[in-house]
Amino acid sequence: MADTIFSKIIRGEIPCHKVYEDAQVLAFLDIGPISRGHTLVIPKEAAPTLDQLSEEAGAALGRALPTIAQAVVKATGARAFNVLQNNGPEAHQAVFHVHFHIIPKYEDGSGLGIGWKAGKLDAPHGAALAREILAQF
Amino acid sequence: MADTIFSKIIRGEIPCHKVYEDAQVLAFLDIGPISRGHTLVIPKEAAPTLDQLSEEAGAALGRALPTIAQAVVKATGARAFNVLQNNGPEAHQAVFHVHFHIIPKYEDGSGLGIGWKAGKLDAPHGAALAREILAQF
Repeated sequence: MADTIFSKIIRGEIPCHKVYEDAQVLAFLDIGPISRGHTLVIPKEAAPTLDQLSEEAGAALGRALPTIAQAVVKATGARAFNVLQNNGPEAHQAVFHVHFHIIPKYEDGSGLGIGWKAGKLDAPHGAALAREILAQF
Repeated sequence: MADTIFSKIIRGEIPCHKVYEDAQVLAFLDIGPISRGHTLVIPKEAAPTLDQLSEEAGAALGRALPTIAQAVVKATGARAFNVLQNNGPEAHQAVFHVHFHIIPKYEDGSGLGIGWKAGKLDAPHGAALAREILAQF
């Protein structure tokens, strides 16, 4: 895959406001925050989207996320937060290296805006779709 | 913590359209989908929010997410998708057991709506805030 700005940050060629690092994971402040404390958590492994990430890199990310979220919440005093990870330009992804946003949500409304139009899953369609997904493993 | 509908699903007391299960993780279709293939991925460990989840449960979730996302994308044909995890009522959380939404995004616009008002992180504030977060570890 093509080199991204995140590869350059991982290699230290571009500076960042680092908040966490281990052998497989790096976290730093987003330079275009949508709320105070908006943090990016990325695997050092370069994969453009989550479905292309290795299980090992996924596990390392998942292991680090609770602790990083805890630190962001404590430092900012936010009582709520969203974790968002986008895949594909149609889904609002801008840098093609997997990244999880941790976005504190404040009482003034700053943070992630969520558009949610819930449908209803009927049993026959649900059963058929679950079978189709199960068949992919 | 209080028992939730997800604990009941894990124990098999309430049915679900299951798409994945391992020793620590369960995934099933959301019954109020915002797009076709909207899937929930949950740890079997009961924690209300991500910052309260154990590292082990986080690692198991992170390990499973890429494969489950892959299966959802293949089965639905979606080219893009969002992964969202909400913490706190102010952040759109409704069930107080950690869950990651995998939400396919389609060309007809169905999927997650994202409200994004980016600010700008200036260097002195960024450095000070990163120090505050780092100090929490």
